[in-house]
Amino acid sequence: MKQPKITLAGAGPGDAELITLKAVKALNTADVVLYDALVNEELLQYAPDNAVKVYVGKRSGDHTHSQDTINKLMVDYALNYGHVVRLKGGDPFVFGRGFEELEFAALHNIPAQVIPGISSSISVPELQHIPVTHRGLSESFWVVTGTTADGKISNDLIEATKSKATVVVLMGIHKLAQIAELFKNEGKHDLPAAVIQSGSTSNEKIAVGVVGTIVEKVNEAQITSPAILIFGEVVSLHPEFQAINDAVLSK
Amino acid sequence: MKQPKITLAGAGPGDAELITLKAVKALNTADVVLYDALVNEELLQYAPDNAVKVYVGKRSGDHTHSQDTINKLMVDYALNYGHVVRLKGGDPFVFGRGFEELEFAALHNIPAQVIPGISSSISVPELQHIPVTHRGLSESFWVVTGTTADGKISNDLIEATKSKATVVVLMGIHKLAQIAELFKNEGKHDLPAAVIQSGSTSNEKIAVGVVGTIVEKVNEAQITSPAILIFGEVVSLHPEFQAINDAVLSK
Repeated sequence: MKQPKITLAGAGPGDAELITLKAVKALNTADVVLYDALVNEELLQYAPDNAVKVYVGKRSGDHTHSQDTINKLMVDYALNYGHVVRLKGGDPFVFGRGFEELEFAALHNIPAQVIPGISSSISVPELQHIPVTHRGLSESFWVVTGTTADGKISNDLIEATKSKATVVVLMGIHKLAQIAELFKNEGKHDLPAAVIQSGSTSNEKIAVGVVGTIVEKVNEAQITSPAILIFGEVVSLHPEFQAINDAVLSK
Repeated sequence: MKQPKITLAGAGPGDAELITLKAVKALNTADVVLYDALVNEELLQYAPDNAVKVYVGKRSGDHTHSQDTINKLMVDYALNYGHVVRLKGGDPFVFGRGFEELEFAALHNIPAQVIPGISSSISVPELQHIPVTHRGLSESFWVVTGTTADGKISNDLIEATKSKATVVVLMGIHKLAQIAELFKNEGKHDLPAAVIQSGSTSNEKIAVGVVGTIVEKVNEAQITSPAILIFGEVVSLHPEFQAINDAVLSK
């Protein structure tokens, strides 16, 4: 009888090579892999052929399985099969409800560990050569969810629009117009902004603009979920921005 | 003659297994590796035996090489040796001055790419089972540097102490007392706080307390640089916190 054990592991933003060696090693010894919608399925190759692989797709607006169901599956599989790797998109602790899964494992006395993943909040802008911090432009970055438990805009996001931080919004594409309004309310029509869909994958798309134009740019580029929003002077470092800047200045 | 090429790669927080497959692949083809003080030297094993490995140690308060020198070394090596992997602690774009290195490469017409790394800002608390976000406790996290270019406390940090975000401060250990005062000014004496030194390594140390006690706890635990500070209700999820909480309530 195998010992039950749970490993929460971050799969990174989508590119199958943006997973850590540690997560690959965990997959190598998995008896079961429970994986999310945003996880690259190529990663399943690192689990043994005879491991059970279960899709528990879950992303904002499309809850194939509820969190409760996932928690129960995770524990049931651990008790019956041994080592469960819970493979989650990005990093398990960045809006991933990973801690709730750790708590649920603890409640059932199943040893659990967490392996960090590359968070899309930092890496997706980065792969587009937009740094979340940069001397002279930004001394901090603030990562906020666009979709809170109650479906409203987070108060933290309202506060973030007032700050000088680089603001990164995850799961916010469906509220982009509302979020842009919040920045406009702070007089930030010309603040550089970008929206990146499916960052790090072959489906990657980007729209670059300013607060006043970003909704239109996103529509033109036909960008949809999953996408991340980034607001801040650092977006002006993106190569596409120079042309936009020239256009704004010549107005 | 080899083509000059530069890869900025994140080495993660310290644990040698917290590097990505993509960064390992870059190291496999390195002619030169320029690595920072906070990089685990075990990672050099992934570079060919005959690759040139140069320590360009650089951390706050101990600038073995200035940024200008590093930029020049990087370009000189690329022009003379071929593929330079610039291996940086954590993630290259989180207070890593990585974008400046990309710009310097571009200025010299050397193709450059960036490979994200596991940022200590998220992963170091995570490995201590402190999530930067958690339903009901935190809808956002704000990452700020404790050491700005001019040596002062960042205005963003002052703003962050007023927010409900989980606040993560990098390179802030030497200003901990000052930073704790900022939170006290906001009436947050009892806000949970933790300081973690050398997270993810065998030298890891942690102090857990509240704003009002954290300086004392850090002194008791003899915690020094490199360390990250984390302030927010999410710290109350750490196992050590329950005892602290009981003590506070019984006062």
